[in-house]
Amino acid sequence: MIYLDNAASTWPKPPGVAEAVKEMVANNGANPGRGTHKMAMQAARVVARARSAVATLFGVRNPEDLIFTHNATEALNMAIFGLLKPGDHVVTTMLEHNSVRRPLEALRRRGWIEVTYVQSTENGIEPEKVRAAFRSDTRLLAVTHASNVLGTLVDIDAMTEIAHANGAFCLVDAAQTAGSFPIDVTRSEIDLLAVPGHKGLFGPQGTGALYIRPGLELEPFLYGGTGSHSEEPDQPLERPIRYESGTLNTPGLAGLAVGAEFVSQIGPSAIGQHNQALIQSLREGLESLPGIKFTGPGRGEPRADLLAFSLRGVDSTELAVLLSDQYEIAVRSGLHCSPLAHQVAGTLDEGLVRVSVSWFNTENDIRECVAAIRELADFLRDG
Amino acid sequence: MIYLDNAASTWPKPPGVAEAVKEMVANNGANPGRGTHKMAMQAARVVARARSAVATLFGVRNPEDLIFTHNATEALNMAIFGLLKPGDHVVTTMLEHNSVRRPLEALRRRGWIEVTYVQSTENGIEPEKVRAAFRSDTRLLAVTHASNVLGTLVDIDAMTEIAHANGAFCLVDAAQTAGSFPIDVTRSEIDLLAVPGHKGLFGPQGTGALYIRPGLELEPFLYGGTGSHSEEPDQPLERPIRYESGTLNTPGLAGLAVGAEFVSQIGPSAIGQHNQALIQSLREGLESLPGIKFTGPGRGEPRADLLAFSLRGVDSTELAVLLSDQYEIAVRSGLHCSPLAHQVAGTLDEGLVRVSVSWFNTENDIRECVAAIRELADFLRDG
Repeated sequence: MIYLDNAASTWPKPPGVAEAVKEMVANNGANPGRGTHKMAMQAARVVARARSAVATLFGVRNPEDLIFTHNATEALNMAIFGLLKPGDHVVTTMLEHNSVRRPLEALRRRGWIEVTYVQSTENGIEPEKVRAAFRSDTRLLAVTHASNVLGTLVDIDAMTEIAHANGAFCLVDAAQTAGSFPIDVTRSEIDLLAVPGHKGLFGPQGTGALYIRPGLELEPFLYGGTGSHSEEPDQPLERPIRYESGTLNTPGLAGLAVGAEFVSQIGPSAIGQHNQALIQSLREGLESLPGIKFTGPGRGEPRADLLAFSLRGVDSTELAVLLSDQYEIAVRSGLHCSPLAHQVAGTLDEGLVRVSVSWFNTENDIRECVAAIRELADFLRDG
Repeated sequence: MIYLDNAASTWPKPPGVAEAVKEMVANNGANPGRGTHKMAMQAARVVARARSAVATLFGVRNPEDLIFTHNATEALNMAIFGLLKPGDHVVTTMLEHNSVRRPLEALRRRGWIEVTYVQSTENGIEPEKVRAAFRSDTRLLAVTHASNVLGTLVDIDAMTEIAHANGAFCLVDAAQTAGSFPIDVTRSEIDLLAVPGHKGLFGPQGTGALYIRPGLELEPFLYGGTGSHSEEPDQPLERPIRYESGTLNTPGLAGLAVGAEFVSQIGPSAIGQHNQALIQSLREGLESLPGIKFTGPGRGEPRADLLAFSLRGVDSTELAVLLSDQYEIAVRSGLHCSPLAHQVAGTLDEGLVRVSVSWFNTENDIRECVAAIRELADFLRDG
């Protein structure tokens, strides 16, 4: 199998990830932070190692400002529902995934907030348009670091600067960039950063994290047992337990520690360069195909580690299914949970085929993918 | 290590659980429900197998009424925040874990709901007291199946009957009983059932589930990508995706499938009888100890698979630490996230030592635990 659906979840994982997960399930079933016996202490150390590994990657000074979640979606919901109050206004963009759009729309339907979607082109968002969308009651700028459909990148430093100049907070969704683009929450003054564990950080599915800037307190998203301060009817203020009620995915976090340490060792920039080179090769390989339409930034422009395209006269889902069935190549078709980004590209009706790469992909994977798409395009148009 | 902290998380897991988790991480990184390629389909089948295995255990007729969550805490939050509206009244009990109490208290602080805590004795809750707590605006009875501190059991059939007779819904927290007590949501007419995956179902940590009765619609707890109906700004109505935004813990669910199938094979009743026998042996072994005070139901009475006690003149945490350090025996001390249950037992200040068992414990484990506690009790009282 040539796996080119890494924007949904990366595969394979680095050496040691699967083993670390198994090791926890097999040899340590204890609940971290819920006991004084040795196994519970060991489990707590595994969680601390994962927290520290992820914190290091994103310039988080105090690992306890990093909250572990089930996935990036939970991290985004935690940020949005935890920060916003009735009467708030939110600025966001057309590039957002449904994990940002739908929580905002839910709060809007509830009558709590108003939302402004800043227009985007396939090349990016003009900071001036973002600035112009702010109002006196704007409390949050919620913005993706990169579109999961178009690959379009957003200038995060510009975003936090605009948010802070307007007295608002900035939430960054790094689902498509964490691990292959350098992100430093301290240097970029990011208030809230949501990351998945199972994409660019190479952890297993069932892991994610939310960074919350020190001093910024959210309403907890989950209420429950915290292992200490049990007598209080309210969540304790102490981080991370304020935001981490219930039993964590300890085996998943054991794997995430290994994955995040692997990323640190190679470096997000080196991983990103490798991925960019593959995506450019893919583009060069496909651009002479008749009727091909690429989305997002142009040739040679920086983009996330993915390329989505349509082929005139070819159904995107059919192409993806045949790539899997006949060539053992995994790509993704459809709307990718980001309908407004399709609106930007004018591809809401037809959908797109998305090819997304990771550190373990090679130029040979891309050559085979290009050859297969070329054959299928001929076949499907003749058929 | 003799592991007797199974009420926090069970260990060891049945054969095949750790391997199934590793297999998913190592050989299939794809995102279930997020693609048409073979790996994504395989991942979706793994999730379907887990859903079906858990549904079978609890008499859930349509597996799609079962929502996978990060843990039981998330399931309880999903039920409570999803069901309750401003103006609602809730009846609950003194036996509840903080994962029920704290979400309710959060909604009460917000001014949305009023809450009545029904008094409990260590032996149980009188249905008449529950019935008397209902008002015309009571929308929910939230009740644990068994106290995680006292082991006290609650008659669920009586609870659903009272709730329905008063036009309310019944949420059951089965954190301490799922897997070792027969529970049938259809026969008992349970509206909402929260279960952890990593306790009596023998799955890995990072798994849990909420059963939602057909026809009962909650506000979603998490909003985000659902893999289909992507163009809608609201969550789709379709189950389970309405309530399962974001990437699931696929490796964890692969392990949960094996764990839940193991439970089905042996049968919750047989597992429960095994556990009860061990707990009675423990009680018999300890009852001649001077100054021992057991909590919860009396000798020979049915109880959850745990026994908590205090020893006059002995600090519960010190005892637990020494059991781990000097005898390699894992038990838990403290408040166990359920302060009101300690109020029932009058042990809020001193805390308790809790011993909790599972299918893989033996009479020998109990003998060694009893002998160690006897030695330590002498030592600590002389010291």
